[in-house]
Amino acid sequence: MPDTSWIAVDAMGGDEGLAVMLAGVAAARRRFEGMRFFLVGDEAKVAEGLKAHPNLAHASEIVHAPETVGSSDKPSQAIRRSKTTSMGIAIDLVKQGRAGAAVSSGNTGALMAMAKLALRTLPGIDRPALAAPLPTLGDNDVVMLDLGANTEVDARNLVQFAVMGAAYARTILDLDSPRVALLNIGSEDQKGTDEIRDAAAVLRGQTHLPLTFTGFVEGNQLARGNHDVIVCDGFAGNIALKTAEGTARFVADLLKRAFRSSVRSKVGFLISRPATELLRDHLDPNNHNGAVFLGLNGIVVKSHGSANERGVATAIGNAAKMVRADLTRRIADDLGNFEKKAVHA
Amino acid sequence: MPDTSWIAVDAMGGDEGLAVMLAGVAAARRRFEGMRFFLVGDEAKVAEGLKAHPNLAHASEIVHAPETVGSSDKPSQAIRRSKTTSMGIAIDLVKQGRAGAAVSSGNTGALMAMAKLALRTLPGIDRPALAAPLPTLGDNDVVMLDLGANTEVDARNLVQFAVMGAAYARTILDLDSPRVALLNIGSEDQKGTDEIRDAAAVLRGQTHLPLTFTGFVEGNQLARGNHDVIVCDGFAGNIALKTAEGTARFVADLLKRAFRSSVRSKVGFLISRPATELLRDHLDPNNHNGAVFLGLNGIVVKSHGSANERGVATAIGNAAKMVRADLTRRIADDLGNFEKKAVHA
Repeated sequence: MPDTSWIAVDAMGGDEGLAVMLAGVAAARRRFEGMRFFLVGDEAKVAEGLKAHPNLAHASEIVHAPETVGSSDKPSQAIRRSKTTSMGIAIDLVKQGRAGAAVSSGNTGALMAMAKLALRTLPGIDRPALAAPLPTLGDNDVVMLDLGANTEVDARNLVQFAVMGAAYARTILDLDSPRVALLNIGSEDQKGTDEIRDAAAVLRGQTHLPLTFTGFVEGNQLARGNHDVIVCDGFAGNIALKTAEGTARFVADLLKRAFRSSVRSKVGFLISRPATELLRDHLDPNNHNGAVFLGLNGIVVKSHGSANERGVATAIGNAAKMVRADLTRRIADDLGNFEKKAVHA
Repeated sequence: MPDTSWIAVDAMGGDEGLAVMLAGVAAARRRFEGMRFFLVGDEAKVAEGLKAHPNLAHASEIVHAPETVGSSDKPSQAIRRSKTTSMGIAIDLVKQGRAGAAVSSGNTGALMAMAKLALRTLPGIDRPALAAPLPTLGDNDVVMLDLGANTEVDARNLVQFAVMGAAYARTILDLDSPRVALLNIGSEDQKGTDEIRDAAAVLRGQTHLPLTFTGFVEGNQLARGNHDVIVCDGFAGNIALKTAEGTARFVADLLKRAFRSSVRSKVGFLISRPATELLRDHLDPNNHNGAVFLGLNGIVVKSHGSANERGVATAIGNAAKMVRADLTRRIADDLGNFEKKAVHA
């Protein structure tokens, strides 16, 4: 059993630098009483940065890493330096059971490759998937996976993603039987690729899993709140996620322009500011930060490369929730039940 | 040469019914002086509907079609009724050269299959693609293709889509050398599928086409105005298009909620109403309606199934522009030059 009171943080990853990472960890510490942190990175620099956060200094331990994974390093290069880089050492702390989760804002491909090699996949899982909760108009977020770990997948992978996504939604959204849909280009049975149609047939046929399969969902329904888990290959998921981010920013930019277009609208903007700030807050990616690699023997959370202090704190908070809810065991249990029933069916 | 003063309209297609289609054609007629319309559908019903539009009655001719393609008909079923359905007969008018373009709000799959069978692809084109202009923050719209006609493509298809999309952008956006990018899940050379990387290599190597290849673009950059043409397979394109539509609506719904959240914000909303209406107008899909199947010997425009009168008018207006600009010949010329140079290279 991993030590669930410790989280290992790659203090050197991310575009915003060490100071932002440390400030984010300090903010998370204030919210998660009793949580402790391994801060992995250049010892002298981390110690220097910690001077601004005396409370965090008391709740953390510095683990020296002489090197850092660069944002353009290839996964194959990064793997060779897993014993010396801040990212690799943070993952190793999870492998050793000394930390319940690792969090990094660094290179996604390298993080995925290192995590897979060090932690291995859960029994029955061919490929891990990157999952994250996204905002909706409904009562809870929607979990989407895969968001970019696997460019191409087969039907079996998609079914596994559905099982893992449902276990994740049960844990972080506190749902009994999450509504799971497959992302497709139409809702009719004959739409999409062979892989998607085959995965739908398997999911439609199962009745023993703690999930409700709701069929196909199209891109325009992602945020409506009618689904709890949306499953797709990593290419489509990455395109959808980034298109949603880009469109939200596009609309916000248009709104800004519109408000600036006349004195009258500027006045209206000032008066309705609390409302538009509510909106900004709801859409700010820093409030939804922290994707997780599902399907590994351990929790590895990817924070957005450009996350600010609040974003880092959100990602670490999500990691803390997953650790405390024992997410890895819950996924392993669901997968075990699925495989067992599938064999007897 | 097709008759460029006539457009064939499938009067029976679409979710909104005949009255909306006729009102849309009537609105387009007012904008395109001298344009004439074949209204294909149930003769008695169309004649009855035309009573509300005497000016359109003078600028149009009813062509009787005893049947209609249903929204859930399979393409294979629809093809067998191409001589008797309003959709099939509208396409046939283009084939006969009696109309410069066909416009339908009906079943996309059926429209694609019928159009491909009747009009055939241009020399050198394996598969037609569905293309449409989308709004951006920049000076002009961005053309995106394929939006759903081809679920799976190879590198050769993607290169052809790039050439066709560039010819389309030159025509409707009036650009000399459109900036063309491939949609991908990262901007680095090694990202994405083999098909995308191979297509990029071909496009990078060519210098004789009237387009500027700008590499890979991610989903969050679609609306920034940094590209004129974005190329992808029909699965990713459909996901991106619908996710963008859904996200725009999501943000607008959140904004509505935020404005209703207090008396103060309601007042602000009323004052800034002209600004928010500007935004609504910019995002309304009815102002960007009319996707076209590129790569056929003739122009076939797909109007959104739920388009209102204004949306139908926009789609018909786009068809009229393509007809007048002789889009099919321009694409054929660009493809011919590309093939010729490719052989000699």
